[in-house]
Amino acid sequence: MRVCVVIYPGFNELDAFANLYMLNRVRKVCPDVQLDAVLLGPSGRLLSMHGVEVAVHGPVSEARAADAVLLGSGGTREAIADRKLMAELRLDPIRQWIGSQCSGALILAHLGLLTDRTACTDSFTRPDLEAAGVNVLDEPFRAQGTIATAGGCLASTYLSAWLVANLLGSEAAQKMLRAVAPVGEEHSLVARVMQVIDTRVPSPVSALV
Amino acid sequence: MRVCVVIYPGFNELDAFANLYMLNRVRKVCPDVQLDAVLLGPSGRLLSMHGVEVAVHGPVSEARAADAVLLGSGGTREAIADRKLMAELRLDPIRQWIGSQCSGALILAHLGLLTDRTACTDSFTRPDLEAAGVNVLDEPFRAQGTIATAGGCLASTYLSAWLVANLLGSEAAQKMLRAVAPVGEEHSLVARVMQVIDTRVPSPVSALV
Repeated sequence: MRVCVVIYPGFNELDAFANLYMLNRVRKVCPDVQLDAVLLGPSGRLLSMHGVEVAVHGPVSEARAADAVLLGSGGTREAIADRKLMAELRLDPIRQWIGSQCSGALILAHLGLLTDRTACTDSFTRPDLEAAGVNVLDEPFRAQGTIATAGGCLASTYLSAWLVANLLGSEAAQKMLRAVAPVGEEHSLVARVMQVIDTRVPSPVSALV
Repeated sequence: MRVCVVIYPGFNELDAFANLYMLNRVRKVCPDVQLDAVLLGPSGRLLSMHGVEVAVHGPVSEARAADAVLLGSGGTREAIADRKLMAELRLDPIRQWIGSQCSGALILAHLGLLTDRTACTDSFTRPDLEAAGVNVLDEPFRAQGTIATAGGCLASTYLSAWLVANLLGSEAAQKMLRAVAPVGEEHSLVARVMQVIDTRVPSPVSALV
């Protein structure tokens, strides 16, 4: 099972690597699981928002073959202006789970994937997303069918947990959260995140399992 | 003002990039502040725990000139076995703020910097740290003077906020936390983290300010 985290030049390191790390952590806490999370980008090496050069695992075109795709934030406005890049991002909400972190929601809107025109994003991105006709919620996470949006870097816990709950079930998502929680806060993190996910995804273990 | 996040081959991406991102975020929310956070490592390019090749900003020897140094986790056992690397990590707890994330505490212990032999770390590292004679707390964060230890990837919020509170004051730390919190959870994150920091650092704005 393969999940891609798509990044662009100027990407937000926390948004990208929090999701990448948490998703790859699942196979350590669930030894029977084969879940690989990789970074994809428009060029082999990208410079992050704070000047870290990172080599991605593959080109953006690989996203279409993945079980799930998360669109990172940072550099999204320039990414949307790149027609070749957008053309390569042929995502399929019937076959794939698709999520966005912060300004990644701008790309979902651009691709026509926010079909109910409602999303979560960060406060900096909010005006741009509203200008694109999207209703932005004062909440950290929203899921509608196979599409989810998260707002605020640390809402990556919601996004990754939603994805894992859908791909592998709620127990795997809870194990993943416990593995990254601050020591002593495992229970409260799991309770907070799973409550939000459970209430917004009516059938968390569905199509792909 | 310069903060270094030290990483090693096999480093934990979430631990390193959460701190790097949050610390660099400070100058966006506090425009009068000059705080740069950079990655340092034993070679120009390192492979992370999950196979991401990352170029660091400089060699580990630059850590000794920084105002603060955070020791990342992942690959720490091999790092400790590397005598040249350990010799280059000449840290000064009189002049520098020093912190560790998860297994980074093993390096603090190795360097003799856990003077009261008490620390926080993740559950996987705990046996090794106890074997080194350190009392491990069931808590996410501990600070003793200029030395702090954090346990659990997401305890990076405590570590970075402690550092910013000491370098720049409590208000800057709170602004940083609000900027990365899940939307709608800004207040609860700030309250949770600042309470822990305030109770464990009697004089948060001290020597360096």
